[in-house]
Amino acid sequence: MQHAFDIQTDGQGLYEFTSQVNGWVQAQRLSTGLLTLFVRHTSCSLLIQENADPEVQTDLRNFFHRLVPPTTDPSMSYLTHTYEGPDDMPAHIKAAMMPVSLSIPISAGRPVLGTWQGIYLFEHRKAPHTRSVAAHIVA
Amino acid sequence: MQHAFDIQTDGQGLYEFTSQVNGWVQAQRLSTGLLTLFVRHTSCSLLIQENADPEVQTDLRNFFHRLVPPTTDPSMSYLTHTYEGPDDMPAHIKAAMMPVSLSIPISAGRPVLGTWQGIYLFEHRKAPHTRSVAAHIVA
Amino acid sequence: MQHAFDIQTDGQGLYEFTSQVNGWVQAQRLSTGLLTLFVRHTSCSLLIQENADPEVQTDLRNFFHRLVPPTTDPSMSYLTHTYEGPDDMPAHIKAAMMPVSLSIPISAGRPVLGTWQGIYLFEHRKAPHTRSVAAHIVA
Repeated sequence: MQHAFDIQTDGQGLYEFTSQVNGWVQAQRLSTGLLTLFVRHTSCSLLIQENADPEVQTDLRNFFHRLVPPTTDPSMSYLTHTYEGPDDMPAHIKAAMMPVSLSIPISAGRPVLGTWQGIYLFEHRKAPHTRSVAAHIVA
Repeated sequence: MQHAFDIQTDGQGLYEFTSQVNGWVQAQRLSTGLLTLFVRHTSCSLLIQENADPEVQTDLRNFFHRLVPPTTDPSMSYLTHTYEGPDDMPAHIKAAMMPVSLSIPISAGRPVLGTWQGIYLFEHRKAPHTRSVAAHIVA
Repeated sequence: MQHAFDIQTDGQGLYEFTSQVNGWVQAQRLSTGLLTLFVRHTSCSLLIQENADPEVQTDLRNFFHRLVPPTTDPSMSYLTHTYEGPDDMPAHIKAAMMPVSLSIPISAGRPVLGTWQGIYLFEHRKAPHTRSVAAHIVA
């Protein structure tokens, strides 16, 4: 079973799509299995993160923005891949530090996410993008 | 085949559970397959790391403690999700930087870990926790 | 279906092996499936990254070299696992921050890599190494 989730982004930050994933998995009507998500881009990431307090998402965005600032920041002047904009090479670096794929067992017909776990697309570019996440279930 | 490993932690650091994983895999008596581990929390991580010298584990803990210090550190004053304690938001950040899931092929009845590879739960919180790791084998 | 890719490295940096992976997957002549790659070492990583501009690879290597400098750097003097050389413990740290396993759905007989996505072995050690990457396909 395969599917593609399209996620519209509008700037850097986390976009939750847990309910879309759960809905698709439950529609397959299987008991156990293995769900894999794979994002088909090199300037955004997949994250499992806390879904309770939105401040967690803001803090995550701000931490990584400080750890990997735009190439206009003097501390990043050694970077050479800058012609696609000051947020481009930092986006590739963040994409190296955070997951491109996630694998989640399915039990009782649902991904075994913990109580506070949500599934997010972490957009690293400032401009709006449509991001494609490939999904696969092994029954 | 599915299982849940419960791992008791007592403060920040790495907790190895390679032998439990190997024991469960070998008990399934299959030749080849794919093992997936998934941790059901947002403030700890799964790591494959060197199992020879315990100093590696201490150094890993200390590196990430310096890269993502507690929110009581002045450099982290911009973080807003602080009401669960100074080690909480840093734990979420570390959980974003390190794996939530691991996929390991099984060959000759065992996970194909390299000679020096062990499987660890990396606890990011100071207080004791019981951590649940979901395991799934595709035969 | 299982395979092992051997990748010769000659110093820190990214080594692409997308074409080897695609060739092996296509030789299996299956329509859909799930590809898993797992690197059997604790001082290198697997990365999906941009395959268009080689400067991206240079910038990635340089960013992580600054984030996790050799243990000869005064800022790293707290590290204790230093007897295997100044690039050893930083290699373990980078291996904790970047993927040890990748899972990629297969569709129409090919891994569903995006247009700009290549598969890389990121070597973190200075000396030449032969790195083993275990591959597994669930049909």
